Amino acid sequence: MISLVQTTLRGRDFITVREWTREELETALGVAFDLKRKFAAGEPHELLKGKTLFMLFYNPSLRTRNSFECGMTQLGGHAHFLVPETVYRPTLKEAMPTEGVVETRERISDSARVLDRYGHGISIRIFGKSSDWVYGRGNLVVREFAQWANIPVINMECDMYHPCQAMADIMTIIEKLRKPEGKKLVMSWAYAPSPWKPVSVPQSVILIGTKFGMDVVLAHPKGFELDPEIVNEAKGYADTYGGSFEISNNMEEAFEGADVVYPKSWTSLAFLPPKVKEPNFAAITELLNKNKDWICDQKKIDLCKKGVLYMHCLPADRGAEVTDEVMDGPNSVIFDEAENRLHAQKGIMALTMGGRI
Amino acid sequence: MISLVQTTLRGRDFITVREWTREELETALGVAFDLKRKFAAGEPHELLKGKTLFMLFYNPSLRTRNSFECGMTQLGGHAHFLVPETVYRPTLKEAMPTEGVVETRERISDSARVLDRYGHGISIRIFGKSSDWVYGRGNLVVREFAQWANIPVINMECDMYHPCQAMADIMTIIEKLRKPEGKKLVMSWAYAPSPWKPVSVPQSVILIGTKFGMDVVLAHPKGFELDPEIVNEAKGYADTYGGSFEISNNMEEAFEGADVVYPKSWTSLAFLPPKVKEPNFAAITELLNKNKDWICDQKKIDLCKKGVLYMHCLPADRGAEVTDEVMDGPNSVIFDEAENRLHAQKGIMALTMGGRI
Amino acid sequence: MISLVQTTLRGRDFITVREWTREELETALGVAFDLKRKFAAGEPHELLKGKTLFMLFYNPSLRTRNSFECGMTQLGGHAHFLVPETVYRPTLKEAMPTEGVVETRERISDSARVLDRYGHGISIRIFGKSSDWVYGRGNLVVREFAQWANIPVINMECDMYHPCQAMADIMTIIEKLRKPEGKKLVMSWAYAPSPWKPVSVPQSVILIGTKFGMDVVLAHPKGFELDPEIVNEAKGYADTYGGSFEISNNMEEAFEGADVVYPKSWTSLAFLPPKVKEPNFAAITELLNKNKDWICDQKKIDLCKKGVLYMHCLPADRGAEVTDEVMDGPNSVIFDEAENRLHAQKGIMALTMGGRI
Repeated sequence: MISLVQTTLRGRDFITVREWTREELETALGVAFDLKRKFAAGEPHELLKGKTLFMLFYNPSLRTRNSFECGMTQLGGHAHFLVPETVYRPTLKEAMPTEGVVETRERISDSARVLDRYGHGISIRIFGKSSDWVYGRGNLVVREFAQWANIPVINMECDMYHPCQAMADIMTIIEKLRKPEGKKLVMSWAYAPSPWKPVSVPQSVILIGTKFGMDVVLAHPKGFELDPEIVNEAKGYADTYGGSFEISNNMEEAFEGADVVYPKSWTSLAFLPPKVKEPNFAAITELLNKNKDWICDQKKIDLCKKGVLYMHCLPADRGAEVTDEVMDGPNSVIFDEAENRLHAQKGIMALTMGGRI
Repeated sequence: MISLVQTTLRGRDFITVREWTREELETALGVAFDLKRKFAAGEPHELLKGKTLFMLFYNPSLRTRNSFECGMTQLGGHAHFLVPETVYRPTLKEAMPTEGVVETRERISDSARVLDRYGHGISIRIFGKSSDWVYGRGNLVVREFAQWANIPVINMECDMYHPCQAMADIMTIIEKLRKPEGKKLVMSWAYAPSPWKPVSVPQSVILIGTKFGMDVVLAHPKGFELDPEIVNEAKGYADTYGGSFEISNNMEEAFEGADVVYPKSWTSLAFLPPKVKEPNFAAITELLNKNKDWICDQKKIDLCKKGVLYMHCLPADRGAEVTDEVMDGPNSVIFDEAENRLHAQKGIMALTMGGRI
Repeated sequence: MISLVQTTLRGRDFITVREWTREELETALGVAFDLKRKFAAGEPHELLKGKTLFMLFYNPSLRTRNSFECGMTQLGGHAHFLVPETVYRPTLKEAMPTEGVVETRERISDSARVLDRYGHGISIRIFGKSSDWVYGRGNLVVREFAQWANIPVINMECDMYHPCQAMADIMTIIEKLRKPEGKKLVMSWAYAPSPWKPVSVPQSVILIGTKFGMDVVLAHPKGFELDPEIVNEAKGYADTYGGSFEISNNMEEAFEGADVVYPKSWTSLAFLPPKVKEPNFAAITELLNKNKDWICDQKKIDLCKKGVLYMHCLPADRGAEVTDEVMDGPNSVIFDEAENRLHAQKGIMALTMGGRI
């Protein structure tokens, strides 16, 4: 599969796996695997020599920031770590203050067109409070940058998608299971006390899983439904790529016979704008607290296929989403998965920011 | 003009265009144009391989930070993004706390002499609140670094000067108009609600314009007079370099027949120390509000010569300083101007931080 | 001495000079001197090409941050400047919040194992408030990283040790005095108004001094005793390496005939946990204020051997720990000492993060 190559990715944005064809995603994975081998063997691969990535973090990050910054160094370039407050907080036109102090804001259309002239890529992380708790607004910010910058825009996690995580996930699944087709992947909700974890990871995982022909089960308690448009897209991928897609409200049933489980907490879109006027964290917390038994413990792992992969994007809420026993146990592939962030992103950057000969 | 070269710029500070001769400024522009061509053509130019620039930002920045950091990467080196709080806030001797906690401050004389040993250049941005609203104190901070460090000090905008902006501006004017001599440049005040925008840009623009033989008109409402010493210097340049310098209190009259207009808000020095004891923002705001008609709109652009260049250092206060129509219209060269920050600064860094063979 | 080489330092942590043999420390110094010559002569030395150091600063820093970041650039790699808040604040297991919001914390065991996959070294600064004022807890944080990361961990100053400072110090002493053996080094307490300066520097200086055969005198008022275990270790080194170790409560007596004096303020461990339940800064301040005469002035310098070296790790409390006259006088070697941070650390990084052929 990995020998497939598309040569037309230069200059492309990477905002969601929905907008790249299966062939394009496979091309990126192929480059990622190649760069991972070079990294392991100490073979230089300065494909982005002297080039710059602007990383704009409206939210904190350990893995994403460090894997992108390392990745650029390894590719011979450099990544700027930009915190909004230090760069006049690039802001959507409609969210600009209408009067008074504007020293602290600048329209994205202006910021993006300037960065476009200096460097070679822009990557953005924005969700939750940073986009006023309105589901979809973080994605709008990413798209606004993409609209105004000619250089590629890479989504480092918005409120809808985390495509780089999805690429690292499928890369890990391919490494461990060889062929994803026909394997059962359970993207499950899990309990955590915080009411604002974004849905970007589960939405991206069901998309990438079905796009690679897996039998995907999305499991969650009632009230934690994902964006129906994305669920529909995943169903369509299941039809197109020969896998399946099901929704379950029972964690145990879902885990039965699974090859991969991915239990992770997320918020309830039902209590966030635009569904409601104001975010209702009290209601979300009440709903969370009814489902504390949605923890991934050894008993649940034992329901799965022997050798099942336990996956998580990290950071995980130990003791809530997962027990230490599982997270540090033999089924856990979380550090391989985290490492693949580096290689998957290097693949994407090399293809979009690099140049064909 | 650009073929002129001075070879003695290694180790020189760049604090204001006043302290570089016309020949030295032209040398920097010549290198800037050459590096811009190399950038466009993808030709490596690692003139500062392994070298370090320390960028100290007492104030936020999008263009300056990213253009310097990108520039160093493209030249083969690296720029440190330093926020004062993380480096014991280098401080003038007279502004050091006299008792109590001093963990958060260090004398500039000490900080500068240390950085001098590690790297190859220091660049500083400081104005407004960061220099206690006292006009000239930001410049003192930059000069204090220059006094103690042997490595070059580059002014990334103080309360008096923004010389890198001026270099990008004249570079843009040369690109668009070929010869600046005899062309009419209007540096005009414009309305914005914030009472603390520094005078560094207009002061630098009238200096560079007259130093390159342009017919410069400085336009502003009464009460927004610039530093008389700098105005005098500009008058002297007009005499020396064959241009002219005039002051107008009427935006429309000033715009008539202009080749370049640069409408931008700035504060009133009359209500800031040392002119008065305490900054009087209420008085400045009152003065601002009397002049809301100083906006650059299409009607004013139509007074200028056909094809007039609309310039701005950014970020601009859309709807106050300028209408969207003008800023995004055919006369606007703001993104070319912003891009030239990168190339102009690379020219200056290559000459001052680099080495002659 | 500097011709001695140990070839087994790849992958080693550098947390305290106690854990490296005298031969290993000399190997690092040898590389440091060699890299310093190359730096001076402009000879490239990209020993860590494309490699990454993760610098985690729980406390501010001028010298440490800039010398490490410059050092990595000069070695051909790159250092990430990480502030805890932007990377989910890596935290000891026992200090993790047990309920509520955990978005802002991640267990060190998880953070360390992720960074381990992306780059080539982790360096940490943590003391005082950042480790809850509990003496030894900062060191625990550094050790926790070392336990979980396979890549080298370098201590950039914890509450117990500042080994990189000690290496720069002994390097400076060797440069100035040629042979440290038999020379008198006075590590002296000095007055400063702040009650929380860590003991890491004096503890590291008495260790390195005795380990290199010097006659070390530790001078301080009663109440400022260092960690008895470390004092004992220093005594042992004096026996092993042919020097001596004494404690004095009289600054003047201690200074008599000194070759090197290192007067520096530090806190009282007697009023900090675990000695007491809560930090008692009022008591420390009271004790400090009784000893304002412990200032290093010219009169005290005159008690020393002619040409005595005045040393300080910086930032120094001018007017409290030391007079301007001494700090800026002919005996002061503080900027050579600060510079050697760069070279000493490059030596350590090249050996631990680099690869033997």
